[in-house]
Amino acid sequence: MNAQIITIGDEILQGQTLDTNANYLAKMLTDLSFTVERVCSIGDTKHSIVNTLDLSVGKYNLILITGGLGPTSDDITKKVLADYFDGELVENEEVLADVKKFVEARGFKLNDLNRKQALVPTSCKVIRNPLGTAPAMLFEKNNSFLVSMPGVPFEMKQIFEEKVIPELKKIMDFPTSCIKIVHTYGIPESMLAERLEDFEKELPDNLKLAYLPSPEGIKIKLFSFGGHQKRLCDLIEEQVKKLQNILGNNIFGFGDDTLEKVLAKELIAGNKKVSTAESCTGGLVGHKLTSVPGSSAYFCGGVVSYSNQVKIQTLGVKESTIENFGAVSKETVIEMAQGALNLFNTDYSIAVSGVAGPEGGSVDKTVGTTWIAIGSKDEINAFVFRFGTRRDINIRRAAATAMHLLINIIRKEKS
Amino acid sequence: MNAQIITIGDEILQGQTLDTNANYLAKMLTDLSFTVERVCSIGDTKHSIVNTLDLSVGKYNLILITGGLGPTSDDITKKVLADYFDGELVENEEVLADVKKFVEARGFKLNDLNRKQALVPTSCKVIRNPLGTAPAMLFEKNNSFLVSMPGVPFEMKQIFEEKVIPELKKIMDFPTSCIKIVHTYGIPESMLAERLEDFEKELPDNLKLAYLPSPEGIKIKLFSFGGHQKRLCDLIEEQVKKLQNILGNNIFGFGDDTLEKVLAKELIAGNKKVSTAESCTGGLVGHKLTSVPGSSAYFCGGVVSYSNQVKIQTLGVKESTIENFGAVSKETVIEMAQGALNLFNTDYSIAVSGVAGPEGGSVDKTVGTTWIAIGSKDEINAFVFRFGTRRDINIRRAAATAMHLLINIIRKEKS
Repeated sequence: MNAQIITIGDEILQGQTLDTNANYLAKMLTDLSFTVERVCSIGDTKHSIVNTLDLSVGKYNLILITGGLGPTSDDITKKVLADYFDGELVENEEVLADVKKFVEARGFKLNDLNRKQALVPTSCKVIRNPLGTAPAMLFEKNNSFLVSMPGVPFEMKQIFEEKVIPELKKIMDFPTSCIKIVHTYGIPESMLAERLEDFEKELPDNLKLAYLPSPEGIKIKLFSFGGHQKRLCDLIEEQVKKLQNILGNNIFGFGDDTLEKVLAKELIAGNKKVSTAESCTGGLVGHKLTSVPGSSAYFCGGVVSYSNQVKIQTLGVKESTIENFGAVSKETVIEMAQGALNLFNTDYSIAVSGVAGPEGGSVDKTVGTTWIAIGSKDEINAFVFRFGTRRDINIRRAAATAMHLLINIIRKEKS
Repeated sequence: MNAQIITIGDEILQGQTLDTNANYLAKMLTDLSFTVERVCSIGDTKHSIVNTLDLSVGKYNLILITGGLGPTSDDITKKVLADYFDGELVENEEVLADVKKFVEARGFKLNDLNRKQALVPTSCKVIRNPLGTAPAMLFEKNNSFLVSMPGVPFEMKQIFEEKVIPELKKIMDFPTSCIKIVHTYGIPESMLAERLEDFEKELPDNLKLAYLPSPEGIKIKLFSFGGHQKRLCDLIEEQVKKLQNILGNNIFGFGDDTLEKVLAKELIAGNKKVSTAESCTGGLVGHKLTSVPGSSAYFCGGVVSYSNQVKIQTLGVKESTIENFGAVSKETVIEMAQGALNLFNTDYSIAVSGVAGPEGGSVDKTVGTTWIAIGSKDEINAFVFRFGTRRDINIRRAAATAMHLLINIIRKEKS
């Protein structure tokens, strides 16, 4: 079953508002295993609404519209829908009661604008709004179901989940589907695609794969559809096992996992604590670690040793080490990690020193060169990476790589 | 001049990715005074791309496409564009060189997938990508200009601003307009609107004002259009002067300024250094300070004192102070700021301690309560704030507020 999402509002076309409604509905419909073929944002004009309806009605099983139902004059959606679906606007008693209740609850008197919100097309099924004033409206034409909903996100979400979906399930056969997100780190998209070439070739027809890259890793999305629900999810789990065999510890998590969440789980599970010694990341590793609620269970603190002097005085890095090998070196980053272990007496430490750029690069240490050391009670391991030329991306990748390294070291110790 | 934005990618249609590219381009085009009439997200299939092109080419002056150019097999946009604009795919030497350089800089060997990225349609003008592997492509047909760009946001933004806009200005008459962004901090949107009520009433007809709120402050966008370029910009400067009189030091910058960039300028101008003592922000202040290139000129380092023990041992906060007043208190945050001054011997220090939430709140110290101290050679000033209930937002606001406080203190010392 295919679907289109239409969001109405100049604030989206002018880039003043990020279209979170479309994103939310796209995710919901996909999880309900509709194929969302098109998402469109248009202005609140008769011309563009009619134009878009002409291209949609009869073509998609389901069309969802948000926005253009507010009390203000620039909202003409309802009138256009009434005409388009061969009806007219009439006052609806139930809706008027809802509007009245809503307005008076806020200590206001019902005004003409509010009253206008109780007008609904005769050609639709009214779906009352538990939160706001504008109701949702369900239309049917040429084998397309169309639902128009208010644009205020929290209103739209509640009415969609509590009222619209149950309503649609009465009149449509919802297809089955299963989705799984697999999080990878440490392997670029082109290499990932190469390593998964055969895997992709062997995928069953009712299973799709997509890559979602970012500096914090590449998500692999597995999506199966059609047939029995349980079989779909079993099918996906089989494929996930294959992926784990191919990608090993490049896979760090699933679903809503992030590097910092997974690292938090591993540290809490082992009742371990970590500290940081950050140079080029300037505190980003600490910020990531503490972005997870309850992080005080595994993070006590760190030193942002941006200058060499702080590396020496606070972390106890030897002056000679920096003189002989430089601040961005295996030797220095190892002493930084040791310094954090000593200073904070933690089970693990993360030390990062790199050339974030744009300045500071040299022939042997180009911009993006980054040394990361992971300290533990027994040993300190150092790794070098060559990221790109962009300061912000280099910093994000350095922090992400450091967290990924520690995750893998902890997991290796467990096994 | 009207425009359409088309974003390609199943990850948008399936709600995996929020379509920030469309939002960014809509904003940019609006600022360049194009009328964005339609924003569409479609899948990476020949059918839907051709279908959308048929509805767009010849109808809009400018069509921007992002996505569908990556190395993986699900990207077929380039082939479709080549056919649609009556060309064929050929290997482009310059692009191949860019791809090779990019891949090898990351320590990988060029593979067939990378090589495919050097294929470009004969019917387009190639716009090389300074950051990534996929180039942008400029086509023309039936009085429509169409630009296809990579989907990775930071790549797309840079190539659009640095390469595509200049290219388009050569071949299109951009309407005249002038824009100025005024950055404010420390005043909520409702209060801002109240204080600017008369100012807005008196605005000339060809000048528009918009508020763009975020945890890092509210941007005021002044936008004038039509007539002579210089007159438009003069007009805006007049209004900016009025704004400065009304808002005073709630205005911290203009244009591309950010709190961290402005603070960097102030510190460098006065040849001053700053250090940090962060608790609830976990390193975000340090990360912000070091996100600006050349930050070693004014930032030497800091301590992330997440646990009380680190506050005591590393920063020298008195155990009794934390016992008597708590970790989130005026007394503790002042001793943290003093500790950073002592430890790092800087001109200024920033100390932050708050209840980020969701746990840890109490009756007198609810979630969001945050103490910030700014230390200088002569004195240490502490301030308390009550932010909201969301951990991530509280942390961002705490870091932003701390930077804004230091900016104002430095500026006060100067005047």
